[in-house]
Amino acid sequence: MKIVIDAYGGDYAPLEIVKGAITSVNLLDDVNIVLTGKKDEITSILKEYGYTGDRIDILDADEVITNEDAPTSAIRTKKNSSLVVGLNALKENDDIVGLISAGSTGAVLTGGLFVVGRMEGVLRPALAPTLPTITGGKTMLIDCGANVDCKSEYLEQFAIMGSIYMKSMLGIENPRVGLLNIGAEDKKGNALTHEAFEKLKAIKDINFIGNVEARELLSGTVDVVVSDGFAGNVALKATEGAVLNLMKLIKTEVKEGSLLNKIGAGMLKGVFKDIKNKMDYNKLGGSPFLGVNKIVLKTHGTSKAETIYSCVKQVVDIHNSHFIEKLKEGINANA
Amino acid sequence: MKIVIDAYGGDYAPLEIVKGAITSVNLLDDVNIVLTGKKDEITSILKEYGYTGDRIDILDADEVITNEDAPTSAIRTKKNSSLVVGLNALKENDDIVGLISAGSTGAVLTGGLFVVGRMEGVLRPALAPTLPTITGGKTMLIDCGANVDCKSEYLEQFAIMGSIYMKSMLGIENPRVGLLNIGAEDKKGNALTHEAFEKLKAIKDINFIGNVEARELLSGTVDVVVSDGFAGNVALKATEGAVLNLMKLIKTEVKEGSLLNKIGAGMLKGVFKDIKNKMDYNKLGGSPFLGVNKIVLKTHGTSKAETIYSCVKQVVDIHNSHFIEKLKEGINANA
Repeated sequence: MKIVIDAYGGDYAPLEIVKGAITSVNLLDDVNIVLTGKKDEITSILKEYGYTGDRIDILDADEVITNEDAPTSAIRTKKNSSLVVGLNALKENDDIVGLISAGSTGAVLTGGLFVVGRMEGVLRPALAPTLPTITGGKTMLIDCGANVDCKSEYLEQFAIMGSIYMKSMLGIENPRVGLLNIGAEDKKGNALTHEAFEKLKAIKDINFIGNVEARELLSGTVDVVVSDGFAGNVALKATEGAVLNLMKLIKTEVKEGSLLNKIGAGMLKGVFKDIKNKMDYNKLGGSPFLGVNKIVLKTHGTSKAETIYSCVKQVVDIHNSHFIEKLKEGINANA
Repeated sequence: MKIVIDAYGGDYAPLEIVKGAITSVNLLDDVNIVLTGKKDEITSILKEYGYTGDRIDILDADEVITNEDAPTSAIRTKKNSSLVVGLNALKENDDIVGLISAGSTGAVLTGGLFVVGRMEGVLRPALAPTLPTITGGKTMLIDCGANVDCKSEYLEQFAIMGSIYMKSMLGIENPRVGLLNIGAEDKKGNALTHEAFEKLKAIKDINFIGNVEARELLSGTVDVVVSDGFAGNVALKATEGAVLNLMKLIKTEVKEGSLLNKIGAGMLKGVFKDIKNKMDYNKLGGSPFLGVNKIVLKTHGTSKAETIYSCVKQVVDIHNSHFIEKLKEGINANA
């Protein structure tokens, strides 16, 4: 299968993106990559890293969309940007199954929506990262910022889309779906969650376990957490910030601590490294943009080659799990 | 000064609450405590712990409001509950300066609003905990759940109230006020934050530093984070959950790790304990309910005697800083 990668999105583009593409074709037999971006530069990186095969194609694109660009106008006006060229290739070629970009989140979402297109029946596609839990599993948080002002009908579909993804991709028989709220009791929340609670309760095809609090995001007690994109993004970033800041604090305390503390920390080096790897969801792959016609994966701006390779594997898995077809069925069944 | 404490609110009531009251009068010379609740039981605890002084009074109240009670109807119907008796005492006695409760958050907020009353000019009082930052400071998050559906005018006042509190209580000259949002850029956010951004920018008396992301809550880069109560509560609980879960994960990894890991962890015991104490904002005191006529402090349901004592000190500090008077002035000046 073919996967297109925006070679000029992200802080380490194009070098790390191209290296990720090389790693992907080296390690995955059935994958071909299409890189979009400045052809000469990409060619010379491929050469520099000794890639002489024929499984990486390049689509020339001389513009770049940055985080400073307003997403909607950038998608409209920068027709020859690496992202828009990639999205068009995805849309127009049946043999390209998905797109990966580490570029501007707003541009990837806007482009996904307007170029690749909303799946029939889907009200609002949603950005849905999966977070690693302390029990070794994963929890999906949907939506994380694609829709900042939501109606309860959107949340209803987020629940369905998230449930199908976790079932399809992780083989969870009956994913536990929770509604992000400020308390676990049924009556808690604001106008939106009150409405959404009743709608989620009424969906036959999902295992709705009621309201969940943001403190459960890492605890492994829920598989899909449904939220409007504003609160979801806040929950994601608060979690991310707390983990990073706590690790930083441990480091500082050890540094300022006794010699015994320093020796102790040395003995725990492996443990800390392991935890850092486990909790860094950015390394584990990208966030799928669920509800568009093809697979669109947004990965973190700081993605390096290893993460790009994880993303390619993720697209392969999504494709092989027939997620898009299952999602279409699920949306129809609940229309 | 006199402070009233709801002796029947919280998981460890009445024992730990009464013990906290005894500690408070032992350690703080100028404080008298009024405990509300079942007089006989409180009397026998005081006796058991050898308190024979005259600086703890008891107001008899034989009912208890629980977390299962609907707040509004509980405040209306349980007139003889420890909370309502305490709130009435606070309202009616000039020499009582504040109330502390570890009971149902909803009941404390509803009771604070309807019994103690909204300060003139305040649109919506807000619950505003301060979180310990990794730089050793504190960041206030306002609102954390009192107002789940907000207008931008409310957020405008949250900014003013939070700024006055941090200036008054922590002596921060010009507190940095940020708007909780899903990105740091000016144009980010939903309908509410777009409106609130313009309003906050226009307030002369505050040092508005723009949008802040939830990942900055613990980093010490902002003094007051303004939010609607839903997103604020989500941010607070996500942060809390991430810290707790990460500490739990470290414990598990060490337990399942090598002997070397275990020895290392032993050497770091002091560091971990220190961090746990530093990051556990529940131990540091309570969350003030800002914008009501007197000092109302909600402390965590799991509060033990030590936390109750911290809360008493906090009420003393708020009172001595003339916060209520300064807040009235600030609200008038920005009306």
